[in-house]
Amino acid sequence: MMLLDVNKERTAADYVDQNLIPGQSARFKKQIEFIIEIDKLKHVLRKTVLMDRSRRENSAEHSWHIALSAIVLAEYSRDTDIDLLRVMKMLIIHDLVEIDAGDTYCYDDHGRTDQGQREAIAADRIFGLLPADQVAEIRALWDEFEERETPESKFANALDRVQPLLHNYHTDGQTWLENNINSRQVHDRMRAVKEGAPDLWEYVNALIGDAVKKGILAE
Amino acid sequence: MMLLDVNKERTAADYVDQNLIPGQSARFKKQIEFIIEIDKLKHVLRKTVLMDRSRRENSAEHSWHIALSAIVLAEYSRDTDIDLLRVMKMLIIHDLVEIDAGDTYCYDDHGRTDQGQREAIAADRIFGLLPADQVAEIRALWDEFEERETPESKFANALDRVQPLLHNYHTDGQTWLENNINSRQVHDRMRAVKEGAPDLWEYVNALIGDAVKKGILAE
Repeated sequence: MMLLDVNKERTAADYVDQNLIPGQSARFKKQIEFIIEIDKLKHVLRKTVLMDRSRRENSAEHSWHIALSAIVLAEYSRDTDIDLLRVMKMLIIHDLVEIDAGDTYCYDDHGRTDQGQREAIAADRIFGLLPADQVAEIRALWDEFEERETPESKFANALDRVQPLLHNYHTDGQTWLENNINSRQVHDRMRAVKEGAPDLWEYVNALIGDAVKKGILAE
Repeated sequence: MMLLDVNKERTAADYVDQNLIPGQSARFKKQIEFIIEIDKLKHVLRKTVLMDRSRRENSAEHSWHIALSAIVLAEYSRDTDIDLLRVMKMLIIHDLVEIDAGDTYCYDDHGRTDQGQREAIAADRIFGLLPADQVAEIRALWDEFEERETPESKFANALDRVQPLLHNYHTDGQTWLENNINSRQVHDRMRAVKEGAPDLWEYVNALIGDAVKKGILAE
């Protein structure tokens, strides 16, 4: 029995035994390697804490949460005639780059200066594990999400911003207070909600006002 | 500043302040309460361990992982003309009942005797937080997934079974060995893969054979 050394960091190529792949398909091998590699997103911790404050949220479960929000809140998209499948695909893949680039806190102006570059390199490596046609599909989805120009990506970005706000508000502003965030910064961050889902923006705005009133967010 | 007692378990109704809801919409309030409530799925631990063995996987990140697998492996569905949006919706919602019913280990024959009943009660409460039309939609998706009769649900179930097998195989059978699972039980569990994705079944079969050969799964 030959076991890999679990103390050394494994890469996808260590995992998949070519001899066990049906028909030795190079395409299938790449797809399985990708599916194994993305498990690492479960280790990327965000600033957001869970609703019961027991721990920080990871980017995989965050992605799940907003994909489910897309199903429930689809009717609030500014453009109601959207392709929900593309919204869900974007939400499911949008944080994969964090496996290499880490989670950049949305109010970390220093970290955000080179975020684009770090994430582009990560996208090349991680999406690049897939067969070429799928690299192109996932890269196009990620670019669309980042560029925020289509109705689908505007709505997807709105959901990505509303969810951490709900967590912050309902944990008495824990992450806002720890990081000295003020309401102007939150308002600025939430502009994407206005663009993608005006009705959600109205709610977000009420929560920000109430958070300031309660003293859980600096004015 | 009035804070809730964080030591007492919160319910969705504790969270959402009617006065902050735009237009006091009962529909929107229900949707937000649901989105807050489902955060609890991040606390439901499965038997599966992550690829680096650092901890057990939770049902929210598991759901994310298989939703992404659906995008990458769609071409292996037995019926290739499937509605991928419905597959993804099913995968995203399929474990929500575990918030109340807990994760029932697939080889726990005792736990499985009343699993259906426990999960049906959970579905009533959790889906029931939504507005009536959305209760109906989510319930229909969950029933479809559980009944495994449509091409979409067969493929979704196949993915739900392949992912933990990949984790077991690539963590030297940790969960199999801890729970005294043998290859006949795994084969039996994997029949759904044969039904939904025959090419994936061929791979699964090769991994089971190799796991037995390596001594990480009892014959």
